[in-house]
Amino acid sequence: MTIYWEDIAEGSTLEGGAFHFTAEDIKRFAREFDPRPTHTDEAAAAETFVGELIASGIHTMGAWARLWWDLSSDYATSVGADMRALRMVNPVKPGDVLSLAVEITGKYAHPFNRDLGLIESRHVVTNQHGKKVMRIECRLMVGRRPR
Amino acid sequence: MTIYWEDIAEGSTLEGGAFHFTAEDIKRFAREFDPRPTHTDEAAAAETFVGELIASGIHTMGAWARLWWDLSSDYATSVGADMRALRMVNPVKPGDVLSLAVEITGKYAHPFNRDLGLIESRHVVTNQHGKKVMRIECRLMVGRRPR
Repeated sequence: MTIYWEDIAEGSTLEGGAFHFTAEDIKRFAREFDPRPTHTDEAAAAETFVGELIASGIHTMGAWARLWWDLSSDYATSVGADMRALRMVNPVKPGDVLSLAVEITGKYAHPFNRDLGLIESRHVVTNQHGKKVMRIECRLMVGRRPR
Repeated sequence: MTIYWEDIAEGSTLEGGAFHFTAEDIKRFAREFDPRPTHTDEAAAAETFVGELIASGIHTMGAWARLWWDLSSDYATSVGADMRALRMVNPVKPGDVLSLAVEITGKYAHPFNRDLGLIESRHVVTNQHGKKVMRIECRLMVGRRPR
């Protein structure tokens, strides 16, 4: 069932998901995109003040994007328009499982395109211990109900 | 040659790099982290208002992180402390090659850890046509020269 922009209520919330991080996932992502020793090698990470392997912040953002998609995949054609107020709050470690809570904080018609609306949303990513790991605000273009 | 926090001058700049995006890279990243049709499938993307395959914004951030690492890999132990003022300015498409320009905008001692300093930096990611695709500001912890 397609959810159009008209169907999304300001103030509504979405919550759920489970994105798993293994040590191998963390190192594989980091080798390609962010090869700092804290993200690519347990022994090298242990020698830094961080003390242990942690995920690249960009990897955590990838998990967030995937959790957001999994909660909103029924939306009519949606494309991210903007990301703001990013905060990496706590590091992500091997074995962590992240979930997402979203609040729809605003909605308005697209200024130029009558087939599109915009929604604004506030996101909190939490690990399996209930600790917040990341916050972000996101503006998304969503398809309007065909007239 | 290790570059310590003391060696990094406020106002200095770094520039360079070449991060390539193929259609296959864009789709592979998106299948794992951001499977919107605009990022995973040329035909589906063509049916949206976007009109063509574009990279996930998180993939573009991954390219930025890699370009930043490649320019700063001689820094003594460095770990990202914060990312702010993110702006996705233009989409990244198959065939694009991104490069990075960085300005060191501030530096200060770590408030608690005498082995660390902090630098603040302003980043602009540009494609092969000289078009800006992304801006971000980043705070990085960098190792201080051993006493």
